[in-house]
Amino acid sequence: MERLKVLFHINEPERWDTALGNIINLLKDAGEEGVDVVVLANGPSVNAYGNNNKLTVMKELSERGVRFLACRNSLRKMCSSGDSCINEENLSSFIETVPAGITAIIKIQSDGYAYVKP
Amino acid sequence: MERLKVLFHINEPERWDTALGNIINLLKDAGEEGVDVVVLANGPSVNAYGNNNKLTVMKELSERGVRFLACRNSLRKMCSSGDSCINEENLSSFIETVPAGITAIIKIQSDGYAYVKP
Amino acid sequence: MERLKVLFHINEPERWDTALGNIINLLKDAGEEGVDVVVLANGPSVNAYGNNNKLTVMKELSERGVRFLACRNSLRKMCSSGDSCINEENLSSFIETVPAGITAIIKIQSDGYAYVKP
Repeated sequence: MERLKVLFHINEPERWDTALGNIINLLKDAGEEGVDVVVLANGPSVNAYGNNNKLTVMKELSERGVRFLACRNSLRKMCSSGDSCINEENLSSFIETVPAGITAIIKIQSDGYAYVKP
Repeated sequence: MERLKVLFHINEPERWDTALGNIINLLKDAGEEGVDVVVLANGPSVNAYGNNNKLTVMKELSERGVRFLACRNSLRKMCSSGDSCINEENLSSFIETVPAGITAIIKIQSDGYAYVKP
Repeated sequence: MERLKVLFHINEPERWDTALGNIINLLKDAGEEGVDVVVLANGPSVNAYGNNNKLTVMKELSERGVRFLACRNSLRKMCSSGDSCINEENLSSFIETVPAGITAIIKIQSDGYAYVKP
């Protein structure tokens, strides 16, 4: 069967748990060799990249091939707003940064990835 | 005109009414012969498949060609959580079950269906 | 590089600010000549087309090539519900009306536009 490809778009912090649950179910069902998974976080949801409980799950998923992307615009905006935030240099090494998450969302879909908003 | 194809993804229970309203408008506008409609529910939204008021509307739509899919993982999870839930064997006969809703969402899009998150 | 194409679907009024921020970031990143942007509002979110603060931002974006579409079904429904609403004839001239927003969402995706739900 042709390899499946999917982009999870997360911009609302409270949707992370649903997204991570979806990905765990997906890998169980399709197998790591059956699907390419990319997660793109922008907006306030990027703060989850500084949450230790979530990072433990994400790290395990990244070791199974899932890619995690963070929007640099959003990381900076969260820091400039004075709330708790993560500087790009403090991101875990398995997380990739893209200049503008919204552009990545479009390009990844144009590469044939299905879009899911958990 | 080429036949339209669309997948409605519903994972939040409170979005069902919007989704069903969208589908009614769509069939009115494009005609039953003009569009293939698939509805995929996962997460807590699967409980609507046990709601009599919603089932009445869904049943009518299914008779006009709309397909309704339920995620088996989600049905089981809702039941194991101790909340009110529906067992798969009690689902109305017009509702189809898929092993993992998230995999179906990807496959259906790769078959050329547009994605809508109501 | 191939021109990017994206549809923003807004049906929840509270997501407008995120959407407009996304579009501003996108134009900054990809350039006006690098991306085609269409915004489709249906449901209660159409009321933003009568909000002066938002219209100022939308107007500027429309002058940079962004298209704004309103669902006629939704405009009428908001008016028949007795809440504050906008009649189609009062819409700003840069806003286009489509008979059924949901049909437009499918057609635009089938024309190769990526889908984003902000």
